[in-house]
Amino acid sequence: MSVDKIFEALSSAPRRRILAYLSKTDMTAGEIAERFADMMSQPAISKHLSVLENAGLVWREKRGMNVHYGLKEDALTGTLVHFLAEVCPRSCPFRKDSAAAATRKKKDGRRA
Amino acid sequence: MSVDKIFEALSSAPRRRILAYLSKTDMTAGEIAERFADMMSQPAISKHLSVLENAGLVWREKRGMNVHYGLKEDALTGTLVHFLAEVCPRSCPFRKDSAAAATRKKKDGRRA
Repeated sequence: MSVDKIFEALSSAPRRRILAYLSKTDMTAGEIAERFADMMSQPAISKHLSVLENAGLVWREKRGMNVHYGLKEDALTGTLVHFLAEVCPRSCPFRKDSAAAATRKKKDGRRA
Repeated sequence: MSVDKIFEALSSAPRRRILAYLSKTDMTAGEIAERFADMMSQPAISKHLSVLENAGLVWREKRGMNVHYGLKEDALTGTLVHFLAEVCPRSCPFRKDSAAAATRKKKDGRRA
């Protein structure tokens, strides 16, 4: 998992929109494509999903006829917690929030 | 200010390192270049600084013989707060932290 790849993946509005959908529920490739039907082709969506998968931000699973996608929540939040801890100035309200969130995450014993 | 540009700017380790330096203190272009002296040329650093400036993440000011750079903290945290609010699942510890931070920011009446 490369931090460069993660931020690169986040630098596209359609990819951020896909992540927003997946943060609510897992979806099939077809369901995702439907949401973009008026603005993007299926191959274009597949390309975006592939970028997200390569960045380690989504998982992909073939079930019968459908390919399902879901958010890898820990990859997303872990990267941002680390980034904020490094870059946020002392005055930044995120600084202590992210530190507290990181501590809670650790206590919860969830996968990093 | 484009969110795509901001994430694109963050997709480079040297640029994230520059932001980390600038989160501690404003620096001159020369001081920044010194920190990378063993791995990168001055023109390469100038290019990275220009990407960060174009993304709206740093300010630049000529003072006498020197060019000073500093972090635009609100652009960075504002973008991330908004992104997290949109993308973080309900279970994500960041979700309520970022909402609380956004509320405090608003109350403080700080520039967006």
